[in-house]
Amino acid sequence: MSPTVATHFTLKSYLTYQQARIEEALHHFLPSPDSRPQTLHESIRYSVLAPGKRLRPILTLATAEAVGGDSEVVMPTACALECIHVFSLIHDDLPCMDNDDYRRGRLTNHKVYGDAMALLAGDALLALAFQLIAENVSLVPAERILPTLRLVAEASGTWGMVGGQMVDMESQGNEVTAETLRYIHAYKTGALLSASVLSGAMLAGGTETQIENLKQYGAHIGLAFQIADDILDITGDQTKLGKPVGSDEERDKATYPRLYGLDESKRKAHAEVEAALATLSDFDERAEPLRAIARYTVERDL
Amino acid sequence: MSPTVATHFTLKSYLTYQQARIEEALHHFLPSPDSRPQTLHESIRYSVLAPGKRLRPILTLATAEAVGGDSEVVMPTACALECIHVFSLIHDDLPCMDNDDYRRGRLTNHKVYGDAMALLAGDALLALAFQLIAENVSLVPAERILPTLRLVAEASGTWGMVGGQMVDMESQGNEVTAETLRYIHAYKTGALLSASVLSGAMLAGGTETQIENLKQYGAHIGLAFQIADDILDITGDQTKLGKPVGSDEERDKATYPRLYGLDESKRKAHAEVEAALATLSDFDERAEPLRAIARYTVERDL
Repeated sequence: MSPTVATHFTLKSYLTYQQARIEEALHHFLPSPDSRPQTLHESIRYSVLAPGKRLRPILTLATAEAVGGDSEVVMPTACALECIHVFSLIHDDLPCMDNDDYRRGRLTNHKVYGDAMALLAGDALLALAFQLIAENVSLVPAERILPTLRLVAEASGTWGMVGGQMVDMESQGNEVTAETLRYIHAYKTGALLSASVLSGAMLAGGTETQIENLKQYGAHIGLAFQIADDILDITGDQTKLGKPVGSDEERDKATYPRLYGLDESKRKAHAEVEAALATLSDFDERAEPLRAIARYTVERDL
Repeated sequence: MSPTVATHFTLKSYLTYQQARIEEALHHFLPSPDSRPQTLHESIRYSVLAPGKRLRPILTLATAEAVGGDSEVVMPTACALECIHVFSLIHDDLPCMDNDDYRRGRLTNHKVYGDAMALLAGDALLALAFQLIAENVSLVPAERILPTLRLVAEASGTWGMVGGQMVDMESQGNEVTAETLRYIHAYKTGALLSASVLSGAMLAGGTETQIENLKQYGAHIGLAFQIADDILDITGDQTKLGKPVGSDEERDKATYPRLYGLDESKRKAHAEVEAALATLSDFDERAEPLRAIARYTVERDL
């Protein structure tokens, strides 16, 4: 457990502490810029080591701690989840997708390295992620790793993030139903967030009941996070959002405020946070970071 | 072991038999065109179920048989290797890469479904591949699966296929050294072929000595296959090659004939086949398919 949890817990110092650990580990796990092919490795490091919230790997570490485990043993998988997240950002930014020039306040990967290298950097990151999870066997028994890896793979592909991205893309410019909007959010963002939460619990030896509760927790914060993101796209500022405000509207994207209005969307986001907190009722103070993260998903600027 | 091996072994009937098994399994493992997102699943099936040699999964099945195992238990991983191969073809054909309109005599994925969907279809296939390998635990012990998965992940990413593709791309239009040419072939094509060979042996319980020999076998046939491909690009016909003859020269690509001339390239290809056969000297008749495949790599049209 991190020292910051012990006495005066503040989310800010907890996040800072975990971000530093994760970034040090990423530095170590990412391919070296001194090894061939150098420019590809530079391009990978450019995107992964860009400033970021590290929400997914933090969830993995925090969940390992919440079930009473040592978060150090889940670090390779935590880093893998960040690699998968960044792979999706690099590919989503490509001209054939969202065609974005900026991400987290810096030029997108393809604007710096070209489309072909950005494509390959994303591909390499996805393969690296599964390599890291498999290599996590040096710290965690194989029988815990395989179901975790299976879950992460499912959450990354067509039954997860890629499938959600696809439905989101298809829905642009069309009227979407509440069911489709829920599908997009649950799959595009929710699946990998849930997998990040569950990975920590599964690898660190959480009980079946804990894992079942954390599954619900992951689903609720995933949805809260996405609704809040939709709201921030209207009300927020660009630095907090990490992308230009109003870009969803411009792209004619399916969003909660569009379907339900701003007030009802805020209500829904807060309801998801309450539901997430309820799933943690049987956890002790070691779940405090997970509780604070749940609140944080909507308190960023709502 | 397949019935065709028992008595009158011919490579042609062996390949036909294994291709049919693999295609049936792929049908089963690929996401259904009836499930959401349907068009993405159609696009995935369009490319994976297109006519193909199925060389990688056949190597996995054949190696499982060569070490005395049951090839049926390695089928999910064999199909995963085909998914990874097809993922690389779909992405390589994209406009920002080779910009090819045809593949295996049919329109490429992005020409039919658009660039964005082709990108996502490739991404989904890579994730699916690791999911299939992890799910192979229903037939094979976890302690055999994790090192296999790790190997396949490494062979797919920057320390394998993607890295080789990157160096190949960088070398276009430049003079390449013999060492760079070897690097490109060993990584771009060789790594996944080797992983296909080794996966079958590792999952089916091959001995350490068998696995070491098969590692050499994989490296030799990988190189033989690639040199032969370079030669076919000059001398062959488009149906055997699966892409337009002369396209390497047109793209100013690094090839063996360009560096060594045609005759020396042919000699090198045959030397690799002999070396591959030598690695199988301690194997019995159950390695006959592997021997025939080694010969086939250069006999396609040389």
